[in-house]
Amino acid sequence: MNSQRRPDGSLRHLLSIEDLTRPELEALLERSQHYVRRLGEGAPHSQALAGRTVANMFTEPSTRTRVSFELAAKRLGAEVVNLEVQLSSRVKGESILDTVFTLESLHVDMFVLRDSEVGVPALVAANVAPHVSVLSAGEAHVSHPTQGLLDALTVLQHKGRCDGLSIAIVGDIRHSRVARSACQAFSLLGTRDIRLIAPPSLMPAEGELAGAARETDIARGISGCDVVMMLRIQRERFADTAIPAGEDYFREYGLTRERLGLAKPDAIVMHPQPMNRGVEIESAVADGPQSVIRSQVSNGVAVRMAVLETIAR
Amino acid sequence: MNSQRRPDGSLRHLLSIEDLTRPELEALLERSQHYVRRLGEGAPHSQALAGRTVANMFTEPSTRTRVSFELAAKRLGAEVVNLEVQLSSRVKGESILDTVFTLESLHVDMFVLRDSEVGVPALVAANVAPHVSVLSAGEAHVSHPTQGLLDALTVLQHKGRCDGLSIAIVGDIRHSRVARSACQAFSLLGTRDIRLIAPPSLMPAEGELAGAARETDIARGISGCDVVMMLRIQRERFADTAIPAGEDYFREYGLTRERLGLAKPDAIVMHPQPMNRGVEIESAVADGPQSVIRSQVSNGVAVRMAVLETIAR
Amino acid sequence: MNSQRRPDGSLRHLLSIEDLTRPELEALLERSQHYVRRLGEGAPHSQALAGRTVANMFTEPSTRTRVSFELAAKRLGAEVVNLEVQLSSRVKGESILDTVFTLESLHVDMFVLRDSEVGVPALVAANVAPHVSVLSAGEAHVSHPTQGLLDALTVLQHKGRCDGLSIAIVGDIRHSRVARSACQAFSLLGTRDIRLIAPPSLMPAEGELAGAARETDIARGISGCDVVMMLRIQRERFADTAIPAGEDYFREYGLTRERLGLAKPDAIVMHPQPMNRGVEIESAVADGPQSVIRSQVSNGVAVRMAVLETIAR
Repeated sequence: MNSQRRPDGSLRHLLSIEDLTRPELEALLERSQHYVRRLGEGAPHSQALAGRTVANMFTEPSTRTRVSFELAAKRLGAEVVNLEVQLSSRVKGESILDTVFTLESLHVDMFVLRDSEVGVPALVAANVAPHVSVLSAGEAHVSHPTQGLLDALTVLQHKGRCDGLSIAIVGDIRHSRVARSACQAFSLLGTRDIRLIAPPSLMPAEGELAGAARETDIARGISGCDVVMMLRIQRERFADTAIPAGEDYFREYGLTRERLGLAKPDAIVMHPQPMNRGVEIESAVADGPQSVIRSQVSNGVAVRMAVLETIAR
Repeated sequence: MNSQRRPDGSLRHLLSIEDLTRPELEALLERSQHYVRRLGEGAPHSQALAGRTVANMFTEPSTRTRVSFELAAKRLGAEVVNLEVQLSSRVKGESILDTVFTLESLHVDMFVLRDSEVGVPALVAANVAPHVSVLSAGEAHVSHPTQGLLDALTVLQHKGRCDGLSIAIVGDIRHSRVARSACQAFSLLGTRDIRLIAPPSLMPAEGELAGAARETDIARGISGCDVVMMLRIQRERFADTAIPAGEDYFREYGLTRERLGLAKPDAIVMHPQPMNRGVEIESAVADGPQSVIRSQVSNGVAVRMAVLETIAR
Repeated sequence: MNSQRRPDGSLRHLLSIEDLTRPELEALLERSQHYVRRLGEGAPHSQALAGRTVANMFTEPSTRTRVSFELAAKRLGAEVVNLEVQLSSRVKGESILDTVFTLESLHVDMFVLRDSEVGVPALVAANVAPHVSVLSAGEAHVSHPTQGLLDALTVLQHKGRCDGLSIAIVGDIRHSRVARSACQAFSLLGTRDIRLIAPPSLMPAEGELAGAARETDIARGISGCDVVMMLRIQRERFADTAIPAGEDYFREYGLTRERLGLAKPDAIVMHPQPMNRGVEIESAVADGPQSVIRSQVSNGVAVRMAVLETIAR
């Protein structure tokens, strides 16, 4: 897929980490780190997107992610419009494209899209005018590229590198775009030991995430690892009888202080939020000294600033 | 109705095109064209409304029109607040006026109002403080003045004039504020041959739009015309048995390439959006070389900038 | 409660008027009056909060109050994000704190919070980073400090002082944060004669608002007073059989011109809005010469500017 790039090879859209080159990924992370440093001096501001208009189109409710993109764009000087759009009644993609063309005609320069169906960001990217860019803010279960970037940035900040690390990803991997984008980012940066830890019903299909090991026992899975990345468990999945519910899930897969003791002493704990405390993670771990969950969030706004700035024409 | 003007005769509100003079209408269109030209250089920006506050009060959901007004106001340097207000429980207009007075006391200078009932913009205009302006963004089935302006502007851009043209308006004219405002604009600019094309049940009442011809057969109606303006058909109207439903409507009134061939070879096709492709218009026409639908949208933001700038004190 | 202050004694949060000193209250009102004067020259603007980010988190719908805070923050140059958050499912406050920490990590500097439960603003204030401030925009039935400030400012503007006045507060005092914050402000400024007028079922519990007199008869209660402050009656309370419904309530406690005649001839009439005309107040009084209801609203935005500016680090 070269559809993310302009004819000159520069990055025009960001729909997936999958086809990025390692130098592209590293350049995005370096630019993100630039904004992280400026976060230390208060909210960073630039005029890199002055005169540009960014449309946040979120078809799934996600206040935090929307606010993160909104602040990233505003702090680059862009105008931002928020739209909650119902795209479910679309016929062969025509309805969403008509909405996109309308916004394009209103001189929207960048679309930030979140949708629960596969293919919407690529459909929009393939159809917008040459000066317009598309940034995925979460596509069904398949891709969440800025989350993958912020996860990689967080690991780099705390471990100095990704290659040579052991990274455990625990939870509902089957339905997780967070896990997929993170795996792609870690792999591209040289991580060889990625362990997917989940009950069988929450493992991805055979053949997916082929380079990663699979483990149903959390104790064995996190033993000796450098990074423990927990995923949010969707409570509605518990209706599925193949999945242990509530306290059962916590007993079998919840990250407790005891379990975390099996990882390296300086292992870091990550979570994409929002957390179900007492379901996938114990509060003492979420708020403990090894947790880097809050720096993931501030990395998020820095990453989004870097990406918006990079893909803008 | 002189209630749109200040004592010195200048335009204070825009509720309807009906009582505009031709020079007033032409001045608004010329100023709109100024912003269209600047759209060619990216989103135009001015500080004409710096320090002013615009409240978008939409009681009907209409993301696209709201965004168009929002961007127009922001690109003039105004502060914008969006309100979704439920006015249905109002008692004799008191509730909406209390809300308006509250916003006026918060130093809102301009109200952009959309409401499904007749008379709300005029009620508000009659009661606000002298320095406050009201702009209708759609009033029941009776008026949508900025849409009428953008339709006229679109015709002028492609045909150079409105007088001497034959303009066909096709669809649910009875319930359409778009048709009413467009007819008023075209008539004021000298169009003598306006044809209303609809099944009898969707024609306006006798005596309304008196200068226009009526035709139930679309083939006869669009023969030799310069402009074909399609209207959105509200799917909920199909519940009315007097109206042909879905494919039947398309067969009798849908604009196909074949039917468009009956108009002049250089006829343009317009639609206010959102379109029901396959109901009132064929995709091949909507996206075809004679379609000017997308330039209607960018004209829309330019027209709204021109109007906001003109009516501001 | 000194939790509103920084170690150096300066005001960091505003959760309640209760523990303010009289000089602190007077300084806030003086700064508010500065912005009221500038309102006379159009919407006042400053850059006092340039580079700061304010999050409006409203868990109860309240368009007017939200817009008032939004405009106050924008007119001080701040970036504003609006969030409608459902906090009802929170477990021991963890969920709301996770949301707050997320926003804090996005470099939100100030939280404006409205919630229907007691204790949320204090919980947030106790947990945010040292450079972050919290401003209550209404907390259950217990506190609405900016409303108390604007009520005090309105009285000062019209009466020149609060001490020596007789102030009647009429309506559903039991459930009213407006009444509580107003009483605290008036008392702190020296008002000794405060009269709470309500049917027994809408009186606060014994011991609450101890310095105020209680009266069930409105005629006796407002006799000779300088200020009549009406409260909104929640229609849902009428389900409670102990409360006279609709017209009955109006007959027993509604403020009519006749009843207002019992107060001093230059008495002012206040109402926090939105009004139920014909329930707690007659339209002729709400819109009459003694009503200062609309200046309460514009005082509201000035007060909020003054508070935001004062508590910002």
